[in-house]
Amino acid sequence: MRDVYVIGAGMIRFGKYSDRWAEELGELAVWNSIKDAGPHPKQIQAAFCGHSFQGRVVGQRILKRLGLQGIEVVNIENACTGGSTCFRQAYVSVAGGMYDLVLAVGVEKMSEGLILPNLEDIDGLMGRIMPGQYAMRAQRHMFEYGTTLRQLAQVSEKNHRYGTLNPFAQYQKECSIDEILNSRMIADPLTLLQCCPAGDGAAAVLLACRKLAKRYSRRPVKVVASVLRSGSLYSANSDWASSEVTIRAAQEAYKQAGLGPEDMDVCELHDCFTIAEIMHYENLGFCKKGEGGRFVEEGQSAIGGRVAVNTSGGLLSKGHPLGATGIAQVVEIIWQLRGEADKRQVPHPKVGMTHTMGGAIPEVEVGSCAIHIFAV
Amino acid sequence: MRDVYVIGAGMIRFGKYSDRWAEELGELAVWNSIKDAGPHPKQIQAAFCGHSFQGRVVGQRILKRLGLQGIEVVNIENACTGGSTCFRQAYVSVAGGMYDLVLAVGVEKMSEGLILPNLEDIDGLMGRIMPGQYAMRAQRHMFEYGTTLRQLAQVSEKNHRYGTLNPFAQYQKECSIDEILNSRMIADPLTLLQCCPAGDGAAAVLLACRKLAKRYSRRPVKVVASVLRSGSLYSANSDWASSEVTIRAAQEAYKQAGLGPEDMDVCELHDCFTIAEIMHYENLGFCKKGEGGRFVEEGQSAIGGRVAVNTSGGLLSKGHPLGATGIAQVVEIIWQLRGEADKRQVPHPKVGMTHTMGGAIPEVEVGSCAIHIFAV
Repeated sequence: MRDVYVIGAGMIRFGKYSDRWAEELGELAVWNSIKDAGPHPKQIQAAFCGHSFQGRVVGQRILKRLGLQGIEVVNIENACTGGSTCFRQAYVSVAGGMYDLVLAVGVEKMSEGLILPNLEDIDGLMGRIMPGQYAMRAQRHMFEYGTTLRQLAQVSEKNHRYGTLNPFAQYQKECSIDEILNSRMIADPLTLLQCCPAGDGAAAVLLACRKLAKRYSRRPVKVVASVLRSGSLYSANSDWASSEVTIRAAQEAYKQAGLGPEDMDVCELHDCFTIAEIMHYENLGFCKKGEGGRFVEEGQSAIGGRVAVNTSGGLLSKGHPLGATGIAQVVEIIWQLRGEADKRQVPHPKVGMTHTMGGAIPEVEVGSCAIHIFAV
Repeated sequence: MRDVYVIGAGMIRFGKYSDRWAEELGELAVWNSIKDAGPHPKQIQAAFCGHSFQGRVVGQRILKRLGLQGIEVVNIENACTGGSTCFRQAYVSVAGGMYDLVLAVGVEKMSEGLILPNLEDIDGLMGRIMPGQYAMRAQRHMFEYGTTLRQLAQVSEKNHRYGTLNPFAQYQKECSIDEILNSRMIADPLTLLQCCPAGDGAAAVLLACRKLAKRYSRRPVKVVASVLRSGSLYSANSDWASSEVTIRAAQEAYKQAGLGPEDMDVCELHDCFTIAEIMHYENLGFCKKGEGGRFVEEGQSAIGGRVAVNTSGGLLSKGHPLGATGIAQVVEIIWQLRGEADKRQVPHPKVGMTHTMGGAIPEVEVGSCAIHIFAV
């Protein structure tokens, strides 16, 4: 397989765009990625578009606006992992030699609708939707490991603080621990400010082979691991607070990269709820099982700590438009590794990671997890 | 790029399955493809699932039923081209060396709902949906080239006749020219029996590298061209009866294969309406522009003619569950090239082709076309 590089990254500010079609949001993000990289749009050979709820042939609708009608376009659905799956397929097409320059774009408009459970999802239809599930995981984590309400809130405090430093974040407002703990209860112990918001957004990156990366980028970022796996999001039969599919995907990604969790300087992980970030510190190997609460409390996941987590503001503050999320995570890591993250810049990072997971039917536990590792 | 082979093919009979979930239909098709090929399901390294309307993580839902939870799963949407796009991505992953044995499965349940136009599709919302569009193309073709109502009906008569010879077809009933012409008018000149039905279905194939193909198949079929292109489905500004994206995709596929239209022994093409089959004879180069009507009238597209078209019954008689269609086309070609098509067997075919096209927004003309060529 060939080496693959990210040579361009762009997004729009996540938020509410009730007066724009999804394809308009996608178009803006793609232009930003193209302006960042430099090649003429006509040099793009294929496009992969991640989304879940935007109807048919969304990628074609975006590319039509860009005047890019002739190329191969693939639309990809994978719930919250959609954007990352789209990045993965773009990676496969360059790594395998099919194409030299491809686009991965993720887009979603979610501010005007709720995610309804699939018809087959009996538990979901009866109310066991995401906040309830993650609340049960938080309860379990608190019971098993003594994780505190304050530690949960500290995740949100950190991510909202970083959100104020990211002009692309949906929320750009600091929240104190007290505000977070006293916001409206959604599913005990998770309060409103511990749940990611609904919103609209788009993000895009350009991937290239080594030759084109050298031609178009002064600072190409190499993809050193790309893993997509399906499986149980959380292991119902053993430990409600372990993400089996994340643990497996991380092991494989570290092996591919020849690196370990201790080598990660910066990481965008799937903090759909505060408890998720704490659990994923553990699942990704940043700390031992049960120590996630202390990890955030001690500032180990802050800029200047062991690994800077969710410097973009994460899903909690930057927002979580499903199909766009995985690509936006890549965008943040690229900016960090190129030293372009401005006020939220991690000092001299060499290695970064993205982690996304998603699924739709809790009852039967099907989902997927994507992990990508990048290096300069 | 490596050579890629289809080593297993299976489907379920297309029809109405109101008592089954989409994932059950998918599971049955996958088992049929596995039984056909021989490898243990656990040897499958990745799965690609094509569909448009079945909700989230459909591939994972199918694989969970098969006990195949750990592998990479990608869900793909590309309107009517979804199944073929899924086949294409499976092909890319094997050709590029990422995987040695992958599954492509397409599934759709459509018997209980209509395809609604996208919200952005103003023309569609006002009634310019598919039957109306193809009716206009038929009118144009009749006006420009003297194509007759009888020639249109002959496409349907042929495909329904072959449908009776295919135990997997939704409709297995012959229709006379008179019955076809006298059936209910849908959009002048297209009568009911000239429009593909709504239905449910699933189809699956296994793709492998040369080494595994030799191990598991006595009759592997080689993929000699794989092309997916986006663009205008039909050219509004020049000739309403030319499919620009089909013409371009076909040229590229013939070039990849080192073959021409004259080399095709059997072809499954996108006969969503009778006029579509006539136009695609021309777009694929089987006859000259304007001669499509005569081509079917002379029996050139029948078994024993120049190229046997839609021996499965085609979309008109076998049915057209969107995401399943492209894979089911491949299944028919595999069976034909292996000499397993029973009463509808073409004598000693060496080369076969599939052609699928789809799009969602006629107004802005975005869609895609996939062409695959196979050889033994």
